[in-house]
Amino acid sequence: MMPAPTYRDILAARPAVYRHLERTPLHEYSLLSEQLGARVFVKHENHHAVRVFKVRGGVYLASTLGEEERAAGLYSASTGNHGQSIAFGGRVTGTPVTIAVPEGANPSKVASMRSLGAEVVFHGLDFDAAREWIEREAERAGARVVGPTDPELICGVGTYAIEILEDLPDVDTIIVPVGAGSGACGVCLVAKTVDPKIEVIGVQAERAPTQQRTWKAGRPLLGPMETRAEGLATRVPFENTQRIMRHPTLGLDDFVLVSEEAMENAIRLYLEAIHEVAEHAGAAPLAAAIDLRERLAGRKVVLVLSGGNISSADLRRIVA
Amino acid sequence: MMPAPTYRDILAARPAVYRHLERTPLHEYSLLSEQLGARVFVKHENHHAVRVFKVRGGVYLASTLGEEERAAGLYSASTGNHGQSIAFGGRVTGTPVTIAVPEGANPSKVASMRSLGAEVVFHGLDFDAAREWIEREAERAGARVVGPTDPELICGVGTYAIEILEDLPDVDTIIVPVGAGSGACGVCLVAKTVDPKIEVIGVQAERAPTQQRTWKAGRPLLGPMETRAEGLATRVPFENTQRIMRHPTLGLDDFVLVSEEAMENAIRLYLEAIHEVAEHAGAAPLAAAIDLRERLAGRKVVLVLSGGNISSADLRRIVA
Repeated sequence: MMPAPTYRDILAARPAVYRHLERTPLHEYSLLSEQLGARVFVKHENHHAVRVFKVRGGVYLASTLGEEERAAGLYSASTGNHGQSIAFGGRVTGTPVTIAVPEGANPSKVASMRSLGAEVVFHGLDFDAAREWIEREAERAGARVVGPTDPELICGVGTYAIEILEDLPDVDTIIVPVGAGSGACGVCLVAKTVDPKIEVIGVQAERAPTQQRTWKAGRPLLGPMETRAEGLATRVPFENTQRIMRHPTLGLDDFVLVSEEAMENAIRLYLEAIHEVAEHAGAAPLAAAIDLRERLAGRKVVLVLSGGNISSADLRRIVA
Repeated sequence: MMPAPTYRDILAARPAVYRHLERTPLHEYSLLSEQLGARVFVKHENHHAVRVFKVRGGVYLASTLGEEERAAGLYSASTGNHGQSIAFGGRVTGTPVTIAVPEGANPSKVASMRSLGAEVVFHGLDFDAAREWIEREAERAGARVVGPTDPELICGVGTYAIEILEDLPDVDTIIVPVGAGSGACGVCLVAKTVDPKIEVIGVQAERAPTQQRTWKAGRPLLGPMETRAEGLATRVPFENTQRIMRHPTLGLDDFVLVSEEAMENAIRLYLEAIHEVAEHAGAAPLAAAIDLRERLAGRKVVLVLSGGNISSADLRRIVA
């Protein structure tokens, strides 16, 4: 069992991350603050060129490879943002990247991975089939397989949490979406190390509550997996991120669920009030803040807008 | 006649601008590059909290006020982005701001100015009536009236052009929308001082070509003013920005017009390909680049995405 990363590991990831990525802004929006009765700040992880916080992890992981590992390349399975992030990390560090996707994967995400230089191979009917295949391919090639919660990914994405504290040292509450959990763990490790009084709240979808149920119960519990929020759609709980999220001093303070309708209302609010495109997972913290309105009254609240890769079909439907 | 600002004046504006605003990213988008057959970079002036490049000018202008001027406050007329920028500059420097808007002004922009702390006064049936009234009010109060092309505004907004060159020293072409002309002048003064070979192309709307016609003719020419692109809708040419845009060594290389349909196609492309919200003026450089496809082939092209404050009604109509 690998030791969990620490605040110092996240600090150590910064130089590699900032070699290829810029800090993202934390903006206060008075229109949202008025609406919520709190001071609302948005952390714009949707401002990266690939529109998602995960790219910080991809860049850092690729930067840690030795010469032989780099030459062998990175292998991973993904249907979306994870694959784009590894592809981006590979491109900026000159590391070949192969991503397995299931048949029928979203063509625009496949196009994006390819335009970042990754080799994309269709294999199998679902994510797990693609993942098993890429693991065998990587073994044959003697190359690294990247999973969704590798420690380097947590360290890389944790750099955004340090930026939040730099920009708003007196933050009261940070609300972060949970998929595999790398983002939430990065926030916990940073915020709780600095001051355990900073409240960290995780969000998953009512229609995909596996991580949340497991967190509440303290043992692996499955749930349905029917959300439109690709970034929150976790089939199985991840042991290493659960360990951090349930840690007695570093873990989440709370873990809430939001409805599909609440996420889509939040997407609409982001578009109309601040002219920002959020994908479902990216809008989930705003949806949660609206649900938690009374509890957050008067507090300084940071919403992590984790990504903006919504499909054109969803965007059209939600705006109409 | 006030002397035109220089590159050094823009450099001098940086410390005040960066006290309150962050650098904006310049991202290359491979999906746009493939589509245009050029290397396409987007300068994200829509990433400011108030979603528009002009805020750099508002912040800088407010920072230059002496104690008495600050106490007297800033007065201006606006129906939109200009007013928000002055309001933001006033807020961060503790300067009271009064903005006159015509009856019937866009309620969401009025709400935004008010939420930034500005006093908004409705006066008159059109912009000119509001402007004349605010000039009298300012005179009575012994306060500064801010026009759309005051030299401090050009210096402030010019800081984004320096960022473009820092991030892409070998840029070939910069395409910038022209309303009153402060943004285009900032780009010209920076890019042409550094190297006259950097091509700078201005864009206005076919349905509001006053500045473009005046630039081509070398004498004031009016035109229709029927565009939906609020940021390009200039009723009369501005003498001080025309002087820079027509300057023999520092001026624009070309000045093109785009149709309403081309701007709305570009808004749709920004939304779907890179998940960014552009207002009509902000999308005009992408529309122009599509029109100029052959001429730009293989070049490194920067599109200034100058602002994202599109109305919800327009967004809904364009996405549908």
